[in-house]
Amino acid sequence: MSARKEFRDLVDPAVARETIAALDLGRGTEQVDLASARGRVLADRIDAAIDVPGFDRATVDGYAVRAQDTFGADEADPVPLDLVGEVHAGEAPAIAVGDGEAVEISTGAVLPEGADAVVMVERTDSDGDAVEVRTGLAPGDGVMAAGSDVAAGARALGPGNRLTAREIGLLSALGVDAVPVRTRPRVGIISTGDELVRPGGGIDHAAGQIYDVNTHTIEAAVAEAGGEPVVYPHVGDDYAAMEQTLKDAADSCDLVLSSGSTSASAVDVVYRVVEERGELLLHGVAVKPGKPMLVGRIDDSAYVGLPGYPVSALTIFRWFVTPAIRSAAGLPPAEAASVSGEMAVGERYAEGRLRLMPVGLVETGRGQTLVYPVDKGSGATTSLVEADGLVAVDPDREYLAAGERVDVQLFSADVRPPSVLGLGEDDPALSRLLDRLDRPRFLPFGSREGVRRLRDGVPDFAVAAGPIEREVAAVDLGGWTREWGLVVPSGNPEDVAGLADLVDRELALLNRDRASGLRTDLDRAVSDLAEERGTDRGTVERSIDGYGRTVKAHESPARAVADGRADAGLGLRASADALGLGFVSVGTQDVRVLANPDRAEKSGVVALREEIDQMDDILSGLTGYGTMS
Amino acid sequence: MSARKEFRDLVDPAVARETIAALDLGRGTEQVDLASARGRVLADRIDAAIDVPGFDRATVDGYAVRAQDTFGADEADPVPLDLVGEVHAGEAPAIAVGDGEAVEISTGAVLPEGADAVVMVERTDSDGDAVEVRTGLAPGDGVMAAGSDVAAGARALGPGNRLTAREIGLLSALGVDAVPVRTRPRVGIISTGDELVRPGGGIDHAAGQIYDVNTHTIEAAVAEAGGEPVVYPHVGDDYAAMEQTLKDAADSCDLVLSSGSTSASAVDVVYRVVEERGELLLHGVAVKPGKPMLVGRIDDSAYVGLPGYPVSALTIFRWFVTPAIRSAAGLPPAEAASVSGEMAVGERYAEGRLRLMPVGLVETGRGQTLVYPVDKGSGATTSLVEADGLVAVDPDREYLAAGERVDVQLFSADVRPPSVLGLGEDDPALSRLLDRLDRPRFLPFGSREGVRRLRDGVPDFAVAAGPIEREVAAVDLGGWTREWGLVVPSGNPEDVAGLADLVDRELALLNRDRASGLRTDLDRAVSDLAEERGTDRGTVERSIDGYGRTVKAHESPARAVADGRADAGLGLRASADALGLGFVSVGTQDVRVLANPDRAEKSGVVALREEIDQMDDILSGLTGYGTMS
Repeated sequence: MSARKEFRDLVDPAVARETIAALDLGRGTEQVDLASARGRVLADRIDAAIDVPGFDRATVDGYAVRAQDTFGADEADPVPLDLVGEVHAGEAPAIAVGDGEAVEISTGAVLPEGADAVVMVERTDSDGDAVEVRTGLAPGDGVMAAGSDVAAGARALGPGNRLTAREIGLLSALGVDAVPVRTRPRVGIISTGDELVRPGGGIDHAAGQIYDVNTHTIEAAVAEAGGEPVVYPHVGDDYAAMEQTLKDAADSCDLVLSSGSTSASAVDVVYRVVEERGELLLHGVAVKPGKPMLVGRIDDSAYVGLPGYPVSALTIFRWFVTPAIRSAAGLPPAEAASVSGEMAVGERYAEGRLRLMPVGLVETGRGQTLVYPVDKGSGATTSLVEADGLVAVDPDREYLAAGERVDVQLFSADVRPPSVLGLGEDDPALSRLLDRLDRPRFLPFGSREGVRRLRDGVPDFAVAAGPIEREVAAVDLGGWTREWGLVVPSGNPEDVAGLADLVDRELALLNRDRASGLRTDLDRAVSDLAEERGTDRGTVERSIDGYGRTVKAHESPARAVADGRADAGLGLRASADALGLGFVSVGTQDVRVLANPDRAEKSGVVALREEIDQMDDILSGLTGYGTMS
Repeated sequence: MSARKEFRDLVDPAVARETIAALDLGRGTEQVDLASARGRVLADRIDAAIDVPGFDRATVDGYAVRAQDTFGADEADPVPLDLVGEVHAGEAPAIAVGDGEAVEISTGAVLPEGADAVVMVERTDSDGDAVEVRTGLAPGDGVMAAGSDVAAGARALGPGNRLTAREIGLLSALGVDAVPVRTRPRVGIISTGDELVRPGGGIDHAAGQIYDVNTHTIEAAVAEAGGEPVVYPHVGDDYAAMEQTLKDAADSCDLVLSSGSTSASAVDVVYRVVEERGELLLHGVAVKPGKPMLVGRIDDSAYVGLPGYPVSALTIFRWFVTPAIRSAAGLPPAEAASVSGEMAVGERYAEGRLRLMPVGLVETGRGQTLVYPVDKGSGATTSLVEADGLVAVDPDREYLAAGERVDVQLFSADVRPPSVLGLGEDDPALSRLLDRLDRPRFLPFGSREGVRRLRDGVPDFAVAAGPIEREVAAVDLGGWTREWGLVVPSGNPEDVAGLADLVDRELALLNRDRASGLRTDLDRAVSDLAEERGTDRGTVERSIDGYGRTVKAHESPARAVADGRADAGLGLRASADALGLGFVSVGTQDVRVLANPDRAEKSGVVALREEIDQMDDILSGLTGYGTMS
């Protein structure tokens, strides 16, 4: 199969980027109303068709006069003039100003014939018939001359101008209510895969169904890049349908993106359609992720095949496709969507391919931005929100050192580093606490990992439940206690009394992974039980069915019990209570929030500490929770 | 009148900002579809309702096996397993995996019961009935466990999260197709003034009509700030109508903005409505521009009165109102809309009020951003596009020194410094040249001012027509020649033969201002004529009707001739030709483009030079133009 063959000869990513940039994504022009022109890019030059102002315009409230009549006037020696009329904004003057005469005039009104200056009312006295002018004026004083703001025939705005409030203001002043703008490239989006279900519908886990992530993600990313997304129904393994959808999209779009179609048989279809109706430009790029990327043309439309994993798809989109869409839309490179920072930790890599490394950002509170790799597998959708952007690491770089300066391409211009970054034990009280903070980020990697990373200096704070095994330099922000034990079915039908029942009876446990503070305390309780029985801990563990069967989230064992997938789960009284399950208490543990000592003054950490000090209502709303003594 | 009284006691701008920030602009919640959620702000926490993935999922194409069956396998000593079936993505496994068995599995498919690992196809050989596994696997290899990406019950996103592509991706993965978001504050916009006409309609200059600039400008600025603009018909001097419009807007909006309603009688109406139906919070702020700002409540709506001049209105909006709208919309402060730079020139100011100084930006091409004041009057709409943002200068600062670092609040997050900044003589060939550049800015202030500012080091280039009176250090980028003289009515009905006719006959001239290179050459021609006649230049000038009547734009005298407002106008053969007018040649002058010697390598300047080298088609398309010898 040619697909496999192509992979052997991977294309240089720079060449791939140029190839995509060179694709014709349409550079049309359309006319839009001024009210909907915001954010669009002007396609042609706009010259002023009128003078602005269109007449000699009073810039103050006062009297229109002949300047020469006021020469020599001052406070001590005012000049008297005859008041012969008045003129307001929005009306034609009914009278001219002759020698020795004045006309009352409002700001914005037309200067009457004969007058060449306006004296402000504050420098005059008037009895209604005459006016005394207490200052000398030069011709033009108090007057904005016709055309002096914008002259008819002058170049007002040029092609390529992005229309923001101010440009819309100038166009309004010129009386323009519709403008020629660059069309937004139409971008067709096709997700492929039999297992995909659109969000909002029901899903059958047992049949391997998953929600379609890429359609809405890429839809939003296309709009952010300045394109007009067109979503097509997702296609599965029906290759006739896939071929038809590709053709339909090519007919009506400037660019067609498909994602997930990198399986050998799906690639066959794309290949056939591209080769029958267009041209294959490249297949396989020396980049991680996204190696099997496919670029070509279908009829008059460009085609790019994106990877199926969401983070990979967004990463490849951001690096290779965003520049082409922005350029076709007439937008400048996405400067606002990149930031510079320093690597928080060293990162090793040596695969000889360009690496587009997903990274998170954390601010030190002293103007420094730290960058850390988000090292989950690319299949994880949570990486989507844990990563703020990507760092492009050259193929010949084997190591990025801690402290090294890197440029981060943000996934969106609106992405901001979190106000505070935490890492550690997942906990229901913590979740409610986080709701009270402005844009926090918390990575529920467990107590052990939280403390380890705090030691590396990456997060602002760690959350540690139970005993801390290795000390860490930290500022204690406070904490709470939580009751833990075995979550059992409602009413405890098996009459589980404690850990010993798991050892002595045929009961299936669902455990937590070793990173969890709950697991640490469970291991200790098992050790105590082993000691009590005069045996070793390993023996006791092996006699518990499911001790090695672990999950990573605090509520998962309880949910497994609720679903009948386990007889008992390691968990919290609060979780049992929330899910209406039974609970067998084993102990109470401390949950402590530990701040990075360098960041104790960072505003996000200060805010966190303040909320911890005021969380009594959170704790009293959760069963089994209490304040730390 | 109380309005006047209030002005005596101006409010501290910081107090005004706090007062506006404290206004209740509504903090409601609404449900929106995921497809239209981009850019919105999440109102509530979203917890995962399902595990992601919802099943143990193969992450590679290969064979589902029991890991313990493969222990010890390697390339030299593969393990044979019976192939008992297959399972694809999106289908429920039809068969379980027993001891010594394997099931063919696709990426994304459900791991069959009994299996605990997937070996990738590349590490196997198969004849269709059996498969040889050439590597040892650990349990979990090639498998993403159910809930390991997101666990049911876990906190996925918190309130305050801005929804960009990546958040939309995570929500999709959780099957969420509608989310609770913060409502956008509704902002009513009312322009006041009898003289206003909506863009697109006809306009009567003689009656003092002008186009309504503020409505669309503020509409765009409100949308940029995250509000939902609601435009009301503009109201004039009909105070009953104004009162009704204010009440209508207050009924349906969270905030009502009016602009231009600072005339004493309009203020009366606003006062009455505010005092009858709400509360006046402040009137008069110690800020320039915008001193007469009025803040209050009408019923349950907030009210802010903006100045009438567009730049002032946008400046006051940006400084005082944007933060309140963003906050009500749940958006963080507009960090992306501010940049730091250095003052290009010193700026003196001492009025004892906060000054919101409109400024332009220019990049040096070496990473430095220079900031220069845009010192046109606030009535000029062109300042709108000549200024990129504002610098807030404290009341106690009397002087900003050149080189001093200042923060610039951009008028919009999309505002970018121009690629190249030029200043000097307006010219039709130049306008066409500028169309070929990406986002240039050119300020048509005349040759003299262009050269003067080039000497100060502000612009990247100056355009000088005619003789340069004081030398300037510059890099000559090239130029062209243009024929100038007197533009006369079509067919030259008065048979004007040259300058002498203006002196000797009763013909009304419209001249250019002294900054123009055309004027400099006209002044020289007049000197020559005076010398010829044995008299002085002043005498000749005084004998020309309209010699002192000047306009600032190159086409304005020609347009005046076309409209019958002058018998002759100083101008270009090209302008006469474009407008179908007659022309009496007086001379040909050079137009030179001079680059700032420090910026000759700046990319925008390099691009300009390249376009100048290739502008023959522009010059041949304009009558009276030629290449410089």
